[in-house]
Amino acid sequence: MTAPFKIAIAGLGTVGGGVVKALAARGEELSRRAGRTLEIIAVSARDKKKARDFAVTGWTDDVLSLARADADVVVELIGGEEGIARQLVETALANGKHVVTANKALLAKHGLALAQLAEKNKVTLKFEAAAAGGIPIVKALREGLIAHGVDAVKGILNGTCNYILTEMESSGRAFDDVLKEAQAKGYAEADPTLDVGGGDTAHKLALLAAIAFGTAPNLDAVAVEGIQHITPDDIAFASEFGFRIKLLGVARRVDGKIDQRVNPAMVRVRSALANVGGAANGVSVDAGEAGTFFFSGRGAGEAPTASAVIADIVEAACGAPSPVFGRPVADLKPMTPADGKAAVSPWYLRFEVLDVPGVLASIAGNLAEAGVSIESMIQRVRAPGAPVTIVMITHETSQASVERALKAIGASDKVRGRPCMIPMETA
Amino acid sequence: MTAPFKIAIAGLGTVGGGVVKALAARGEELSRRAGRTLEIIAVSARDKKKARDFAVTGWTDDVLSLARADADVVVELIGGEEGIARQLVETALANGKHVVTANKALLAKHGLALAQLAEKNKVTLKFEAAAAGGIPIVKALREGLIAHGVDAVKGILNGTCNYILTEMESSGRAFDDVLKEAQAKGYAEADPTLDVGGGDTAHKLALLAAIAFGTAPNLDAVAVEGIQHITPDDIAFASEFGFRIKLLGVARRVDGKIDQRVNPAMVRVRSALANVGGAANGVSVDAGEAGTFFFSGRGAGEAPTASAVIADIVEAACGAPSPVFGRPVADLKPMTPADGKAAVSPWYLRFEVLDVPGVLASIAGNLAEAGVSIESMIQRVRAPGAPVTIVMITHETSQASVERALKAIGASDKVRGRPCMIPMETA
Repeated sequence: MTAPFKIAIAGLGTVGGGVVKALAARGEELSRRAGRTLEIIAVSARDKKKARDFAVTGWTDDVLSLARADADVVVELIGGEEGIARQLVETALANGKHVVTANKALLAKHGLALAQLAEKNKVTLKFEAAAAGGIPIVKALREGLIAHGVDAVKGILNGTCNYILTEMESSGRAFDDVLKEAQAKGYAEADPTLDVGGGDTAHKLALLAAIAFGTAPNLDAVAVEGIQHITPDDIAFASEFGFRIKLLGVARRVDGKIDQRVNPAMVRVRSALANVGGAANGVSVDAGEAGTFFFSGRGAGEAPTASAVIADIVEAACGAPSPVFGRPVADLKPMTPADGKAAVSPWYLRFEVLDVPGVLASIAGNLAEAGVSIESMIQRVRAPGAPVTIVMITHETSQASVERALKAIGASDKVRGRPCMIPMETA
Repeated sequence: MTAPFKIAIAGLGTVGGGVVKALAARGEELSRRAGRTLEIIAVSARDKKKARDFAVTGWTDDVLSLARADADVVVELIGGEEGIARQLVETALANGKHVVTANKALLAKHGLALAQLAEKNKVTLKFEAAAAGGIPIVKALREGLIAHGVDAVKGILNGTCNYILTEMESSGRAFDDVLKEAQAKGYAEADPTLDVGGGDTAHKLALLAAIAFGTAPNLDAVAVEGIQHITPDDIAFASEFGFRIKLLGVARRVDGKIDQRVNPAMVRVRSALANVGGAANGVSVDAGEAGTFFFSGRGAGEAPTASAVIADIVEAACGAPSPVFGRPVADLKPMTPADGKAAVSPWYLRFEVLDVPGVLASIAGNLAEAGVSIESMIQRVRAPGAPVTIVMITHETSQASVERALKAIGASDKVRGRPCMIPMETA
């Protein structure tokens, strides 16, 4: 065996702890796979005194010193797109150390510059844990499904949102209610905005899209909408139509451009994505002529995320020279965003309207003017005099047309609240 | 860019043709990924004059000359566990050439010796296409899900069987009938034994088990049963109980030993495996603490299989030094087979019996004597005087107990034909 492969770990939270524990439990076996002894030589985290259920060796208070230490690889598990995490990764790469990270925000924002830095210094920068946790989807896109090109990637990439939507469906309870419970149970952050607002999914989607399409990550081009406005009614109506609502990240090739979007979408109940329940993640890849491939499993948590980090560490130790986004930086094209609003699909629309004559005629008129035609409709009265719920499924229509119609409809004083529009993934 | 990576291809059937076509269509992009120009320098196949929808360059009649040619990698797409395929692979490895193959039979039978040869000559032997076609499951097991060990692999690995079972379910037709149609359509071979008898699934399972558990492949230890005796009745009854019948390859760790089996099994209708329809493949991996991961997609055919072969070629070109079964040969343990008949599960049992008094009492007695207890039962009469179908679901019972009971039951002259027993995968 050659010299030991020296590991420095920054961050000892859930994931960092999982990495330390897995290396302690199965280090010998993993070292044999790597062809070198895997050895943690230094660690750093916010609080040295925090109670931990694993032994800490090589502690340093100075996180940045890890990038200057004698390590072969720096494992960045601090998080955040700027600050110390970015500084650590940049310094480590500049100092000729491999970097393994789970930091989706950092990569989505600064991925191209970091890939350049890694390439310049002839080291690898790996991030399997940054998207879909334990599912080896980065590897599958970077090395597996490359022969025929990728036409689309669709993923359930945020376990918190999927848990909330699954709970809402099974219990019939409202979003706020389920979110509060998820927070109490530790399944959702105190500030849940990044999860339920779709931002976290956007980070992950930007990374998967870059690998899939051979472009630099382009986070700014992702159209993002969260799940906060989804109601139990929407979920129940979806079910009546044979669909289920999921927060999807979708990136697809459209005439040489790339459409990237994160939004609640209806997927057929029998589809693979619809059957990703609870906190799990799932990714579907349309790999051109090779067909569609589907991957699912745990996307977060100690062991699944540590599993991805450790696979990256072992690969870095093996010395496999692999470009950060699957291609040399010079070959990464800029991602030209497609006009997402031109994309057509059937849409689910829901309106809450006053129970007075002429409302439906007026809505129908607005839809017709915008060129939106209706395939089916359900009108439901809760109680005499109470607002009426109208639900419609459109024929294939562009988002732009639906938005134009909804703007006109929403302007009516007979329509209460914000009309709801959810695209249906029927492909 | 460094020197071109020279490719020799043996076999120009469906897969070989797919490889040539994909390299012609996307060679430049794939070369950039590989960091070297990918160049086919020699090809050989049975019949030079066969009409092909792609250009053939570098033809040679002497297949074995490919192993002596100027190639960096020999791509073996001939098939068969002995003969010319084996000779070509051995010669190529001995001559210090990388080998990429889709040959499951060869690897399942001679995998250990070939891995030794590859290691000795410091070349790689890759076989992503040998199991589950386009699904990058070999890579996922070899490099992805390694941190926490694998407890079990369960797969639908033969598209022909899955197509037949799916058709039987949707049409209610009998096995022979659907098989004949599949043969007419080219979905099944003229001699379908290797597919419907479970042998092909066994080859693939032996490979996945070796990578998952760090052992040499042990094909002889796989207990194999095919789908020939499955009736439309079995499929209909399964559905009544909320299950679907699939031909599964299952390998699991049992007290430090490995149980490997291929047989029709009942899987819950809502499980991921149950929703692998038609000719698709699906694999579920229990990765210890990291949880269960699921992979599905096209497992055969030109583009999916070529996709796997090309991923291996690009990896060989990148020079990633990866052990054939994920670990150095010296670390591969012999696979000690577990006593598969001791494994417990609920069982589906079906008997065709004469409609005379006392039959049920006698069957119940035989089951009780063998220690098999019944959870539920359906008895169905087709016509007065005609044989009666009795279907039972047992509580958790070992295969040995069920076989003991069925032997006694089958000996009765009131029982017609062979009783049917199918394990239920409820985990």
